[in-house]
Parts: sequence; structure tokens; C-alpha cells
Amino acid sequence: MHAFRSHTCADLTAAHVGQTVRLSGWVHRIRDHGGVLFIDLRDHYGLTQVLADSDSPAFAAIEKLRAETCIRIEGTVKARDASLVNPKLKTGAIEVYARAMDILGAAGDLPLPVFGEPDYPEETRLTYRFLDLRREGLHAKMMLRSNVVRAMRQRMWDSGFTEFQTPIITASSPEGARDFLVPSRLHPGKFYALPQAPQQFKQLIMVSGFDKYFQIAPCFRDEDPRADRAPTDFYQLDVEMSFVEQEDVFAAVGPVLQAVFEDYADGKTVDPCADWPRIPYAESLRKYGTDKPDLRNPIEMQVVSEHFRGSGFAIFAKLLETEGTEIRAIPAPGGGSRKFCDRMNAFAQAQGLPGMGYIFWRKKTVESVAQELSITVQATRAKIESAELTLEGVEAAGPLAKNIGPERTEAIRQQLGLGEGDAAFFLGGKPAQFEPVAAKARDEIGRELNLTDTNRFAFAWIVDFPMFEADPETGAIDFSHNPFSMPQGGMEALSGDPLQVKGYQYDLACNGYEILSGAIRNHLPEIMYRAFEIAGYPASEVEKRFGGMVKAFRYGAPPHGGCAAGIDRIVMLLAGTTNIREVIMFPMNQRAEDLLLEAPSAPTNEQLRELRLRVLPPES
Amino acid sequence: MHAFRSHTCADLTAAHVGQTVRLSGWVHRIRDHGGVLFIDLRDHYGLTQVLADSDSPAFAAIEKLRAETCIRIEGTVKARDASLVNPKLKTGAIEVYARAMDILGAAGDLPLPVFGEPDYPEETRLTYRFLDLRREGLHAKMMLRSNVVRAMRQRMWDSGFTEFQTPIITASSPEGARDFLVPSRLHPGKFYALPQAPQQFKQLIMVSGFDKYFQIAPCFRDEDPRADRAPTDFYQLDVEMSFVEQEDVFAAVGPVLQAVFEDYADGKTVDPCADWPRIPYAESLRKYGTDKPDLRNPIEMQVVSEHFRGSGFAIFAKLLETEGTEIRAIPAPGGGSRKFCDRMNAFAQAQGLPGMGYIFWRKKTVESVAQELSITVQATRAKIESAELTLEGVEAAGPLAKNIGPERTEAIRQQLGLGEGDAAFFLGGKPAQFEPVAAKARDEIGRELNLTDTNRFAFAWIVDFPMFEADPETGAIDFSHNPFSMPQGGMEALSGDPLQVKGYQYDLACNGYEILSGAIRNHLPEIMYRAFEIAGYPASEVEKRFGGMVKAFRYGAPPHGGCAAGIDRIVMLLAGTTNIREVIMFPMNQRAEDLLLEAPSAPTNEQLRELRLRVLPPES
Repeated sequence: MHAFRSHTCADLTAAHVGQTVRLSGWVHRIRDHGGVLFIDLRDHYGLTQVLADSDSPAFAAIEKLRAETCIRIEGTVKARDASLVNPKLKTGAIEVYARAMDILGAAGDLPLPVFGEPDYPEETRLTYRFLDLRREGLHAKMMLRSNVVRAMRQRMWDSGFTEFQTPIITASSPEGARDFLVPSRLHPGKFYALPQAPQQFKQLIMVSGFDKYFQIAPCFRDEDPRADRAPTDFYQLDVEMSFVEQEDVFAAVGPVLQAVFEDYADGKTVDPCADWPRIPYAESLRKYGTDKPDLRNPIEMQVVSEHFRGSGFAIFAKLLETEGTEIRAIPAPGGGSRKFCDRMNAFAQAQGLPGMGYIFWRKKTVESVAQELSITVQATRAKIESAELTLEGVEAAGPLAKNIGPERTEAIRQQLGLGEGDAAFFLGGKPAQFEPVAAKARDEIGRELNLTDTNRFAFAWIVDFPMFEADPETGAIDFSHNPFSMPQGGMEALSGDPLQVKGYQYDLACNGYEILSGAIRNHLPEIMYRAFEIAGYPASEVEKRFGGMVKAFRYGAPPHGGCAAGIDRIVMLLAGTTNIREVIMFPMNQRAEDLLLEAPSAPTNEQLRELRLRVLPPES
Repeated sequence: MHAFRSHTCADLTAAHVGQTVRLSGWVHRIRDHGGVLFIDLRDHYGLTQVLADSDSPAFAAIEKLRAETCIRIEGTVKARDASLVNPKLKTGAIEVYARAMDILGAAGDLPLPVFGEPDYPEETRLTYRFLDLRREGLHAKMMLRSNVVRAMRQRMWDSGFTEFQTPIITASSPEGARDFLVPSRLHPGKFYALPQAPQQFKQLIMVSGFDKYFQIAPCFRDEDPRADRAPTDFYQLDVEMSFVEQEDVFAAVGPVLQAVFEDYADGKTVDPCADWPRIPYAESLRKYGTDKPDLRNPIEMQVVSEHFRGSGFAIFAKLLETEGTEIRAIPAPGGGSRKFCDRMNAFAQAQGLPGMGYIFWRKKTVESVAQELSITVQATRAKIESAELTLEGVEAAGPLAKNIGPERTEAIRQQLGLGEGDAAFFLGGKPAQFEPVAAKARDEIGRELNLTDTNRFAFAWIVDFPMFEADPETGAIDFSHNPFSMPQGGMEALSGDPLQVKGYQYDLACNGYEILSGAIRNHLPEIMYRAFEIAGYPASEVEKRFGGMVKAFRYGAPPHGGCAAGIDRIVMLLAGTTNIREVIMFPMNQRAEDLLLEAPSAPTNEQLRELRLRVLPPES
């Protein structure tokens, strides 16, 4: 028999009854039922119930066992009484009567219990990560992550892509974020950088004549702490293809992501990639207030400025006199109650806005008609009885409706296609200023009104990103996203208004998160120099920052493009968590510290001497 | 039709004749055959012959094309004349008559030609890596590497292992080599380290209750330059398993490696893993002079000290009076000529030895017998004619044979099982001193005599490594290899002579290279503290260096073990190269510089300021 186990803790069934077996695992739970000891023995695969009574030679030793001790059991498989069979457990038909028990690894007092998984402070969980990882929930999330990565890889290979590893100790490649630096010992005073992404390398791989590249690639960014991102590194499914246009990339990557989501959706529906809409960036902002819309929520915002121009609602009417402003409506089907509208208004105030104006539509009542006509309820009743008036149709309520009057209110209702029991919220100003709150309000409304289908993964390709943006204060033009993207219209487009130039650049949004970003690259040096020039970078700066890549483009660069999908984010979506540390085996805490192995730490003098570095005191 | 290609350059066959097609690729070669232009158009997949005559609208543009320009061709598929069909080419049955040609990416004068792959200095090849990678040889090696990694992964998954990613920005884990450090911006003055190997993490994964882990893991060591290793990082197939003994690890990993080698052996035979011998470390040194023997070579060294003790060969006889010395023979079947023996002797001298004594065995001749008996040739002939003498049997030649006399020489011959036409070489002294040269001589002899089967991959598990070694000068005891290995015999063994303690530690040798190393780990804190104590490290030092891991071992650590296989090395073996830069996409040069992207480089003052670092001048 094997030294440690003849079976795993998930193997034994009624078919094994009577056999002598050996099991190894952890004491998940131990109970004393009147002189009979029961151990739930746990390993990676499952649980097996082990028991010992006072006849067992192992009884005395088992009696002293503590939770999470790692033990080996030898014993006989017994059928459970029919009434004790546990159909939820793979091994629920049997139990093992223990004749011998050995301690393989003793356990001290547990700083973090495994059984029952009670809530514990995250610092404790990170310090004793090895215990936290034994808990069923986290254990399963790690397996999910591993399986997701495996499925991505398998499907990329099956789609004709080849995985290549790109350097990790490499050159600084300024892509917006801060590099992690690595001092060179052989070249003191010089530093390597960890790649923020394999962007330049994957483009070089295309110039090197490989055709369809992918990599599960670690990326490193020295980020300031934020709850939903790792402060040091993350993984992306990095993809690049030669001789492609934008739709080719979508056609290659869409089915892979659809399949991976389907594999691990855990019962949720996954929109088929053939149906993922292409939403231009500008349209996405207009309809959803964000370039990562949650399309599980059917609400689409609409521009309703005309209804407010010159209206009796002075705030909006005045605001619209300023250039670049507009009024946007968020329809809220089913939100037609004052209570709901007031709650959403309070939500907007909590987000830092003065509030959100609203109108809601309700059934007419005698009282409301009386109020509208400024006559008594009695008089109204009389008119209804004499058929002079009717209660048919809806009426708009809310202060805003009063201010702009029934005609404009009705025009708004018709534009938004709303009716009795519905509401609409209004935000005004410069879109860039109100859109972030509008997007959140749209999410909140969808959630509150149960319009958002939480049982679904909904995707959208966001396309036509602007190449450039103007600094709101200085007016200076800079790249709005990726400087390596090919501008739509090529060199010709770069001769016109830069702010009108769109790039062949795209994101994939899923349930309100950006899970992928990519572009058709600018592989033509002259267009690249021109684009950088527009953004204020002279040729010398391009040479300095991207010299290797631009050099490569002078020797027969193919048209190419690709994307990168965020693996941590995708796993978080599939695992239903918003805490990134739940999907990483050994995460840093939010202060970028490893509490288990204690990093970062002070270097030795010898190390600093070899690197010819000195650490300056805090005050310098 | 697709914007860039209807087919790849490997797709078109006789079945496509008559079709209008679009191809994109690089101008591999262009020839002018009397007014007809021929382009070998190349992409990742293959080559297609394109032609244009003066009737083609594209003729003038094609005429001006330079090699390695990236182009798009539109034209008609034509059958080649039967006499011009090239069966070596997938597309050898057809050619494409070009009607239109567009330049997708222009190419300047090539600093490194692609066609023909002429030898070029490595610095040029690294500076223009994107051109070098277009060459068929290097292109194929990159695909080989990618496929090998894929096969490893696939087979590990199929064997029930799960891949987990471990941190890259982490704590210093002193494992013998030098760490790369990463200064922390959020904690100025503190540093992270890049992992030399995921050793602690994979052990923690086992303590966390996962069962069978693997990872294609990047490892980082700040090494001094050496030709056959990357100066910054390398990849390993990292493996760890719980509840296993040494043979379980062999049984898990052997079939994976065997299969990967078989998949990519390119016609060579691969020893089946069931036949891989287990050779104790001491025996390996004795027989092969090394712990990574090349078993394609059947030669086994033997200890022949007794034949030289007190013999007439004063050098060896005297040497044997010193304790710890011995005489080792390298048998050389078929090496029995003075010319060969002298060449091997010269080889040993080139390796820094005074020389290698030898004996060789040849047919007796009248002349040699005459010389041996100190009589004339004539007298010898007479004795033979009178049947007083015979020329049957072999005679030993070489100065060493004379010195020790015929009896000892014959005893040596019998021990080594040699005969006519064979030779033996002798090395004496302390084994640790002569073994490195003995190992090289054994390799050289095997190669020279064609004893080494170069058409084979031969493997051996080297086992029973010593846990400790004594410093030859100070006598101080230190770990000889991995401090995390479990000593054979456990705590009890640690009470005796440390130098006698063997570890559950093993290597896998293939064709003279160590391709894998591993151990059953020491998961018991008390044994770990004792082992470190023997090696001179107090408990406080263990806590300081491996605190996280030792802490984990106090909470129910399972017995576990594993290994790591060197991926770069394995690909080198399969690719038949000894230059590691031939199997890495973007390698550093031997000075640890990236010549393409220019790393390492000077940091900005802003970067240094954020990290609170100052670079000291060279003289400090």
C-alpha cells in the first residue's frame, strides 16, 4: 500500500465497503458522540468521515487531535446506515473505521479557523494565507482561476495562436503608469524595468514574422493603492495578430471569451459573441455615461436639451446658454413613485451632485386633477360626473413637471416612451462632468427596479475611441488612450482637427467592467511620428521612448493589431467577487505588502554596495 | 475578399488553379528571369512563388521591390509546368500571377539578410532580432520552444496537476544565487525581490491543501555572465505534490518528460522512463566523474587503486599513501592505439592535468615479443618456429604497463574486461580533484571512439545526494544542495556524522546535462531547525530567512515533495544547440543588455527621487 494513501478523501463509495484503506488529510472537524469519535478528514479532493470507538487502538491518539492537524488514517470502509447516508458528499455512503492514526504534521492553536469559514479581518487572512486557502470558498476560487486560465490557453491554441514568453526584466516602456525598476549590478547606476505590458514585444513578434501570438502575461505597474486592483502586478491574456482589421480581432477573441465565460458561468447566461453590439465610444457615453456600460441594464439615456431650452425650469434653461452643455434624461420604467424618485435624488446628492431632477407619471386621481385645475375636489367630481372631465390618461408629477408645464412634459414622455408608473431623471451641464454620476445613477436605477438581469453576462465592443483629447485647462492635445493605435483615415485624418480623429481602438465591456482593450496598431513610422507630433512629442522623443520598435517598423512591418484581456477581472466576474485578493493565491495587501513572507524588506548593506545605491533619509 | 489575404503563403495547391487570390507576406527573394519577375513571398506559414511579366499592371512596382518589404499581392493561381513543380514546398505545385501589388510596410537596407541565413555577428543579430527571428532556423526554434512548453502543460494537466501563478514581485528568498531587487516606492528604503524560484510558494501551496501543483515559472537570478545561461532569468517546469515519496515524484514527472521528448525528438530515440536508472550520487561520481552523466556513452570508470599500491609506478604508488586518494581507470574499448592514447593524454593536459597515464592492448608481434624478452628479432623468430614461444594473446603497451609489470597490467585488464584493440586511462589523487577532468575525458573518449550514441536521449535519476558537505579548507559543515530537503533517516540520522547523511534529493540527468532537480521536503520544523543548526545557522536565522514557511509548517503541514525541470535546457537539447540565446525570443546578450530596446538604462531623477535612492559614483 502507498505510504500515505490508498485513496483520496473523495474516492470511497459503497463499492469499497470492507476494504482496508489508507487516507491522508487534515482534521476538518472532530466530534465526540458519546464515546465514538468522528473526524471529517479533508484533502484537496473532498471529505471522508472517519470514526473510532474505544475498541480502536487509535482511539486515544485520535481523542487528542486538534483541528487542521495533518494525519494519516488506516482503517476499514463501512457502509453508513441508510438514515446517515449524505447524498451531498461524494463519500457520503461510507465511513472509515480507523485502526491506526499517525500525525504527519502537527497543528498549533489556529489563528484562523478553517471549518465554518467565519469572517476574519483581512490582515489575519493574509498573514495566515495558508490557512485561509484551505477554506472551501477561497480554495474553490483558486481552482476557478486556474481553470479559467487553462481554458483561455486551450482555446487560444485551438484557434491557431502560439504562446510566446516575452522578457520580464527589460526596458522601461512608458505606457502611462509607473514602472517598477530593477537596479543592474553589472551596470551600476543603470536600471531595468518590469514590463507594464508586453506591448512592444508583441508588436516586435509580429514584425518578426510570427502571425498569431498570445501569452498569459504578467504585467507590472507601480500603482497607488486601490481596493479593486493589485498594487504591483496583474495578468492579462495578451493577443496580437498580423494582417488583420478590427473585426478580425473581434472574430478571433470573441468566441474564446464567450466559451470561457460559458464554461464557468455557473448557470448564468452568456450573450453569444455574434450578438455583442459595436457601440461607438461617443454613443456609449451618451447612452450610458461610460465607456464600459452594463448592458444587463436596458436603460438608455437620451438627450432632452430641446425640451428645457427657454423653459420655466430656470436652472436648466440658464445652463443651456453655456456652450457644450446639454440635458440628459435617464428613463426609469417602473420607477414612478415619489419615494423612489426621492431616493435616487438622494443617491445623486451622495455622489456630490446638487441632486437629480425628476418627473414621474401616474394615474390621474380626482385630487390631482382638482389640484391641477385649481378647483375643489368637489367641483372636480361634479365635472367628472357631468362627463366634462375624465380621469383617463396619465399625469406627470414632480416639481420639474410643474416648472416646464404640461406640453414640454408630455413631449419628454413621448420621446422617452414612458407611461404610467414610470419616471425619468435629469442631469444637466457639460457631459464630461455629469456622465460619471449619470452612469452610476443608471446602474442604481437598474438595480433598484430589478431591470438589471443579474443572471447574465452582457458584452459590448466599444469602438471608435478618440485618438486625442484636449486638456480641459490648458487645451494642450495629448493621446487620449494608446499612442500606438492606427488613426482612422491614416495620414490624411491627421491633417485635420485632431479632436475629430478616431483610432482603430476598442474595448470590450462586460457587466459594467472593461475586460479587454486593444487596437489596430500604427505600423507606419511616418504616421506614428505625425501622431506623436500632434501630441507634442518631437521625433527625438519618439526615438528615445520607442526607438527599438520604430526601428523595427523600418524593415517591413506588417499591418497588425490585437488586444489584452484582464484575467484577474474576468475571474472576479466569474467568481462574483469585487475583492481582487479573492482571486490571487498570494496577494499583497492594499499597502503593497506581503504579510506572509514579509516583503518589501530592508536590503543588506552588501546588496546596496553591489548595486552602488544609497537610500536617502526621509527628509531629503 | 479579406483586406489582406484570402490564403496564407502555405495554402495554395493545384486545387486552387484559376482562382483569384490575395496574399500578404514578405519579399523573401526576388529574381528577374529575362523580363519575368519571381518573388518568393513568405509568411509565418510558408512560401508561395509569385510572378509578374511586363503585361502585369504590377510589373513596374514589383521591379522596384526590396527584400523583406511587407507586401500584398492580388493575382491568379496558375499551375506550374510539371518540370517546375517543387515537391519540397507545400505550394510547390502552383504560382500566383500578380495583377496588383501594394506595399504594406517598406524595408530599408537590411543590416542582416534573412534569405540564405548567412552567419552574422551575434551583436548584430540581437540588435536586429526582429530580422533574425524571420530566419527559418530561429523561427523554427521559437516554435519548438512554444510547442514544448505547450506539451508540458498539456501533459501536466492531463496527469491531474493544476497550474497556479505565484508572485513575481515578492520577498527575498536566499537560495544560493543573488536576488534581483525591486525598490519599493510606497515603502522607500525597502526592496522587493524577484523570485529565484517559487520554492517557498509551492511549498506553501501544499500547506494550503492543494495537492498537485505545477507552473511554467519564470525564475530570476542575478548571475555573472556565462555562455550557456541567461544572465537574468530562466523558465522552469515547477512541480510540487503532497503525500508523496521520492518514487511518486519520479512516477509523475517521468512520463511527462518522456512524452515531451518523444514528441519533439526529431527522429532520435528516447529511453522510456520505466528504464531510467536510479544512480546514487556517490556511484555516479565514481563511475562517471559527475552527477550529470551522459549515459549515451557506455563507459564506466572503475577504481583500480589496489593494482597500483606499492607498484613500480612511483607517482601513483606514492600518491596512494595520502589518505582519501585513489586511482580511477577509464576503459576505452576500441581505443587501443598509441596515437589515440596520446591524443587523450594531450586532452587531459589541455584540461590542466599533468597528463593521463594509459595502457593499451594489442596483438603480439615478433618485434614486441623480442623487445619484451630483450632478445633479437631473429632469436624470437627461431623460438616461435620451434614452438618455444607463441604470438597468441594480447600484450599491453604504454609506459605505465612497463612500470607496473605484466601481472598487475593483466589484473587491470581483467578487472576492466578489456582486450586486444582496447585501452584504459588512469587518473589518481583525491576524487574531487580529478573527477571533473575524468568526466570530460570520458565524454571525449566516448565521442572520439563513436561509443556515444548521438541519436538518443538517455536519462538517469541521480539520487541520495549528501545533505551536508565540509568546506575543504575550514572543515565547516554547510548544506551541499538544498536546505529544504528531508534528510534520509529523519531526526535520528541528524544525530550522527552529518557527512554521512543523505537527503531525499534527486536530479534527472539527460545526455550529460542536469535537466531537473528536486527533493522530498523537510516539512517538520524540529528537523528543519536541527538541520540548519548542523549547517551553522541558529534558529533566529531560520526564522529570519524562511519565517513565513516555517510558520506555515506549524499548522498541519503535509509531507510533500517535487522538482523543477529547466525548460531552456530541455529546449536546447531538443533543438540541438548549446547557445541559450537560440531558444529565447528576446534574449539579453552576455553582458545582460537588451540591445534592441536598450536596457538597462539610466533612470530619471524623478524616478530616483520617488524611490529615495541615490546612485553612488564608481569610486565609492
